[in-house]
Amino acid sequence: MISARQVVQQILAGRESQPGKRAAAYAPANIALVKYWGKRDEALNLPVTGSLSISLGPLGSHVELGRSEGAADAVWLNGKPLAADSSFAKRAGAYLDLFRPSVDFHFELQARNTVPTAAGFASSASGFAALAKAVDGLFGWGLAARELSILARLGSGSAARSLEEGFVEWHAGKAPDGMDSFAERMEAEWPELRVGAVVLCSAEKPIGSREGMKRSVETCEFYREWPGRVAQDLVALKAAIAAKDFAALGAVAEGNALAMHALMAATRPPIVYALPETVAAMRKIWAARESGLALWFTMDAGPNVKLLFEARDEARVREIFPGVEVVAPFG
Amino acid sequence: MISARQVVQQILAGRESQPGKRAAAYAPANIALVKYWGKRDEALNLPVTGSLSISLGPLGSHVELGRSEGAADAVWLNGKPLAADSSFAKRAGAYLDLFRPSVDFHFELQARNTVPTAAGFASSASGFAALAKAVDGLFGWGLAARELSILARLGSGSAARSLEEGFVEWHAGKAPDGMDSFAERMEAEWPELRVGAVVLCSAEKPIGSREGMKRSVETCEFYREWPGRVAQDLVALKAAIAAKDFAALGAVAEGNALAMHALMAATRPPIVYALPETVAAMRKIWAARESGLALWFTMDAGPNVKLLFEARDEARVREIFPGVEVVAPFG
Repeated sequence: MISARQVVQQILAGRESQPGKRAAAYAPANIALVKYWGKRDEALNLPVTGSLSISLGPLGSHVELGRSEGAADAVWLNGKPLAADSSFAKRAGAYLDLFRPSVDFHFELQARNTVPTAAGFASSASGFAALAKAVDGLFGWGLAARELSILARLGSGSAARSLEEGFVEWHAGKAPDGMDSFAERMEAEWPELRVGAVVLCSAEKPIGSREGMKRSVETCEFYREWPGRVAQDLVALKAAIAAKDFAALGAVAEGNALAMHALMAATRPPIVYALPETVAAMRKIWAARESGLALWFTMDAGPNVKLLFEARDEARVREIFPGVEVVAPFG
Repeated sequence: MISARQVVQQILAGRESQPGKRAAAYAPANIALVKYWGKRDEALNLPVTGSLSISLGPLGSHVELGRSEGAADAVWLNGKPLAADSSFAKRAGAYLDLFRPSVDFHFELQARNTVPTAAGFASSASGFAALAKAVDGLFGWGLAARELSILARLGSGSAARSLEEGFVEWHAGKAPDGMDSFAERMEAEWPELRVGAVVLCSAEKPIGSREGMKRSVETCEFYREWPGRVAQDLVALKAAIAAKDFAALGAVAEGNALAMHALMAATRPPIVYALPETVAAMRKIWAARESGLALWFTMDAGPNVKLLFEARDEARVREIFPGVEVVAPFG
């Protein structure tokens, strides 16, 4: 087993650290159109399959990182100092341990999310991506995009996809050390594309992704077919993006999300994130599509629904989902 | 390809028909605890996997069959004469064609369901099982239980399981003519067992089982793992029945139903039978179980939920689901 620390050492081998005073970085949140569900390595967050996401432009995480003169790391989230035993401070601290030059080196970390906390977009992907960039900036390593993606992944799997804007593909890779498991931006623009967050519930999930994935990999027979399904969906999604075929993009994304939730439901014991409101939203979307509206959805490991549509349909979508938070991923 | 007609001829070979005036028969409805989803032969309703159901005692179908003096079959359902082009009359007529001694032989068929039509229990299983028995009675063949199960299957797959009371196992079989694909009663009694029908919607399904199964077999990658899942669930369910371990029975049945609905959701295009009310009912059941009540559910290819519990908990179950229709399968 290779540790995250060994991966960091490998990436930094031969590089000199020239710590500056402070470094700032920003990374966008992302939403997967072909999902990541299941790790082949828990310590390095190496995925069983590839995945493909769209970054959310201005919705993401700003991070400022510096050296603290105090006796411990100091962590602020959205302007508020966090207790050392808060879950975010602990997770950030454990991640910063990977880069800490000595045990008496402490960090001052300011994180600010522009992802609306209650919008159902995960902030851990953008948070760890921004943090990886800030660490690189603070120590002056000048790492390449691929290396930053790998470092971000060590904090949170889907953070690997949050280093770039636009469509981003995370290659699963095969190497035990994960040096081939990184994400990169696809050469494609789709200015008319819109993502809408429909928030049905902002309560904490009954089971987190890390634990849920593990249980699916270990107990769900259908999981054996998941890599094949993802491979097929990736091919279809890339073709849809290349052809700018929105209905094809929507169908792949919606089908892949439903297949991921199907995996969860067939896990033992079953994992069901859907709420009554989730099914109601799905049925509203299908009814709208029946009536000719090009509206599709995707869902992450939670009850909230993310709409996929094009700019010209925004008014109609807002009629159906009045509270929707709309993002234009390509600005 | 072997036709249903050939199967009938094979079963009746060497038997003399001694048509009586009328014959009456009854068969119970059944609810599968390990589900049937997917055919290996569309014409003979041969299943890909075995399945295991519980019969619903007094809820089922009464059939009276005789020769009609008219120029066509005459079909009554629940006391009302049906138009020749109604879906039930057509389906019954096509089934009776398999046994019609000559083209000018017409049947008079009276069918009456004690399955509450709106309770979400299928009546086609009990209907075709009762009809197979009535045909046997009318012509005086005296067929064995196994042969009746095969004949009932030709009308509707799950009808194979409706010839007997109690726990019934349908063996998938391997033979191309399906002579080894029949159901039989298990030697097990469970007088305390209760099945409750919670009716959430009695509207017609968006897609029927026959079409849905076909689409899953053809397009759902996860379907490849379904036979293995069913095999495992059958072993676990039989062990639970033998040990009278209600929590184990509930867990297998609920997990198997969710896995079948997962297959459907991962089908292309996706098939989702759940309504918001379905998820609400599931969550009520899980909440009740969290609080210590031994309450589980199963679901067929539709939005309605069937509760599984034991007699001692009936009052508590009725508090949670006031409109529930309760059946005692063992009388």
